[in-house]
Amino acid sequence: MSTLRRNFIAILTLLAMLFADHIVYSQSQAATNGKTYQQIAEQITKAALRDGQAYQMLAELTAVGPRLSGSSQAAAAVELTRHMMQRLEFANVRLQLVMVPHWVRGPIEEAMILNSPAMGNVPLSICALGGSIATSEMGIVAEVLEVKSFEELRALGKKASGKIIFFNRPFDPALFNTFAGYGGAVNQRGSGAIEAAKAGGVAALVRSMTPSLDDFPHTGGMRYDANVPKVPAAAISTLDAELLSKVIAQDKNVTVRLRLTCQTLPDAPSANVMGEIIGAEKPEEIIVIGGHLDSWDKGTGAHDDGAGCVQSIEAVRLLKALDLKPKRTIRAVMFMNEENGLRGGIEYARAAKENNEKHVAALESDSGGFAPRGFSVEGDSLSWQKIAAWRSIFESLGAERITRGGSGADISVLVRDGVLGLGFVPEGHRYFDYHHSDNDTLDKVNPRELELGAAAMAIMAYLISEEW
Amino acid sequence: MSTLRRNFIAILTLLAMLFADHIVYSQSQAATNGKTYQQIAEQITKAALRDGQAYQMLAELTAVGPRLSGSSQAAAAVELTRHMMQRLEFANVRLQLVMVPHWVRGPIEEAMILNSPAMGNVPLSICALGGSIATSEMGIVAEVLEVKSFEELRALGKKASGKIIFFNRPFDPALFNTFAGYGGAVNQRGSGAIEAAKAGGVAALVRSMTPSLDDFPHTGGMRYDANVPKVPAAAISTLDAELLSKVIAQDKNVTVRLRLTCQTLPDAPSANVMGEIIGAEKPEEIIVIGGHLDSWDKGTGAHDDGAGCVQSIEAVRLLKALDLKPKRTIRAVMFMNEENGLRGGIEYARAAKENNEKHVAALESDSGGFAPRGFSVEGDSLSWQKIAAWRSIFESLGAERITRGGSGADISVLVRDGVLGLGFVPEGHRYFDYHHSDNDTLDKVNPRELELGAAAMAIMAYLISEEW
Repeated sequence: MSTLRRNFIAILTLLAMLFADHIVYSQSQAATNGKTYQQIAEQITKAALRDGQAYQMLAELTAVGPRLSGSSQAAAAVELTRHMMQRLEFANVRLQLVMVPHWVRGPIEEAMILNSPAMGNVPLSICALGGSIATSEMGIVAEVLEVKSFEELRALGKKASGKIIFFNRPFDPALFNTFAGYGGAVNQRGSGAIEAAKAGGVAALVRSMTPSLDDFPHTGGMRYDANVPKVPAAAISTLDAELLSKVIAQDKNVTVRLRLTCQTLPDAPSANVMGEIIGAEKPEEIIVIGGHLDSWDKGTGAHDDGAGCVQSIEAVRLLKALDLKPKRTIRAVMFMNEENGLRGGIEYARAAKENNEKHVAALESDSGGFAPRGFSVEGDSLSWQKIAAWRSIFESLGAERITRGGSGADISVLVRDGVLGLGFVPEGHRYFDYHHSDNDTLDKVNPRELELGAAAMAIMAYLISEEW
Repeated sequence: MSTLRRNFIAILTLLAMLFADHIVYSQSQAATNGKTYQQIAEQITKAALRDGQAYQMLAELTAVGPRLSGSSQAAAAVELTRHMMQRLEFANVRLQLVMVPHWVRGPIEEAMILNSPAMGNVPLSICALGGSIATSEMGIVAEVLEVKSFEELRALGKKASGKIIFFNRPFDPALFNTFAGYGGAVNQRGSGAIEAAKAGGVAALVRSMTPSLDDFPHTGGMRYDANVPKVPAAAISTLDAELLSKVIAQDKNVTVRLRLTCQTLPDAPSANVMGEIIGAEKPEEIIVIGGHLDSWDKGTGAHDDGAGCVQSIEAVRLLKALDLKPKRTIRAVMFMNEENGLRGGIEYARAAKENNEKHVAALESDSGGFAPRGFSVEGDSLSWQKIAAWRSIFESLGAERITRGGSGADISVLVRDGVLGLGFVPEGHRYFDYHHSDNDTLDKVNPRELELGAAAMAIMAYLISEEW
């Protein structure tokens, strides 16, 4: 780009900034009885850091255990968060009933390299992917075929027949954004079983979705296709994926035995949980702030997404505690079943439409409870520009990166219906180290980082409430 | 501030930005054979993330153990990092000898509440502060007096006589910047023993310097005053500080026994370690990039400051591996004895002056190996403006926060002599959770975050090399 053109763009940007800044600045005087938004943001941040309750709430929530949809722990989490909101005197605390898938991991999850020339029998660290069918009782014994992509698998033709297909494409480590790394690898988990079966394979073994090298298998959602036979699918730890790949490099005919006893039960009753602070001037206009209450059945879902749930409750609590009286209704929603069905998010949007509720915006936290960096805005250009003009208000807590992009899975149905979506964006390098594994536990969460995320969300919800 | 004045300032800022931006942009074309600095920054970042060696180097360094000045582990770390730089074919790899203090923690570190009415004898989690004298063999048995400040202690007059003075002022949790929280509490550790003795006290017991509540005592440096009697000083874990405070609230006459067997040995020989990439155009102009090789004797100094050491080596390695041929010499320096003497930093600056070396800038990483946020610039306004104009170059790795402030302890003597100082600023919320305690270990470091810090430092050193 020429220097002239850069300067021209910079001047336009400045004019836009001045204009937007002017609006925010002048309105803030009127809206907040003499306090600037900057001052309110600092007030919220200090209250969160000094007297925050998010970490204590997360300790209570994770003590329930993993909260896979349909499980007794998920039911306990519904009751727990309902009681939290009641204890904090939220308005209209209620459940929104929804039927959810009910998949259960079996007691047996085993994989072993059989009779390798160099190492003999080698146990592998694996776990069933969520939604997988079981193997037969004796397990599957088959040769393993390693591939890095569906294209590579398809090109192999008949060679895949009767094999366990081992999908071993890692995250691209060179990507700064770990979510982009995840996005570049996760089709192996989501569609690996379908592609394996299409190629004549008997099972899918998928490298865990993490940039770290560790011994923990990372589970996650996977799909079947009604037109393709179902084959079992399991995640293998990254270290054992590397090991298996090395063994295969030495001996093309590596045989593995895989046993899984997971099963899918009939759909179970469950619920979204919600409570709110009623808008002082426009109570009928709603800003949703939420996370998902369910988790996978590994670890205790501390970052994914216990953090987002308690941050949403904490954000509303902070606004109440500081008596900020937002103009619009701000509603904390614990969505059920994000991980393997999205039934909660779908039901929430359906009911909102049925009841003619007016949703102004929806803000989701589902990227972990790490130090805040900013927000991702999913909406039209004008909405984005308006929110981007608030950047400086978020500088004092390091959350000033406001970009355009996706918002969140649970609110995606609302967003499709035209509601402005926002995703809370924390520091992202550690998220997939823990994600969907036994490592996603409370000790991986820093109380200050968690609280600051809640503060950033409270400030954003408040700004939208006052300025939309 | 009036809107008019804000707009005026904004226009001035824009003009400054355009001007600075123009300089950087046009020079970058000439300096880098058609590659913009943005492209070079991305190249460095990708190389770090894809093929980085910082984490592996940190694993080797922390495997040596804690590296307190004068210890055999510190000596081993000198040899290890010298070999690392030789292995990586740095130029002029050498040691700079320096005598360092040699304090050793004794085998006995005990504190116990004696005969409290409610709980009987209660052991407390403590450790000697670095530099403390020992107690007598039988220990000190005395009543405990809790204070929150030196002013409060002085106001108590004779009441402090014969007591163990318990300094229990916590970090201010409401501060966003944990280093500010540390700054607001650390005089208790540094001068607690002096103030206790001045007041007639027999020992100092200091609340650990951390915002977290945990069972680990955090050690650190403390001073004596030649004109005041020396009394022993120990850190107490934050949880036990809370406990002791509660016991005191119930019973004013709480007695504690304190035993320490630490001692100060004669000064020991040690060394700074350095190696460099020689400038292609101005080899006599030097940019220092460094961390400190010594650590406290708790944990293995992974974040403090093994991270800074390996990042400095890694930054030079990256520039070499990418064949970027900086105009000026970029020198990685492992400073010895930052924690309890600064002898390495002092000797480095002394020798630089003696040898008439021309130092253009010095960049230190001593705030942990967490995700990069930016840099703190310690220099004149023009230098700061020039560096701040590079902000956009650091956006792709999240290190665009360039502020004015302090740089680093090891380079402080250089900076006092007029050299431009820069401090690498990573995300800071977790640092003091681990700092100077058994928790400062390799597993608290995320490989990607560590590498990105090294990349940010490499980019900054390179920009200064090309543009100064």
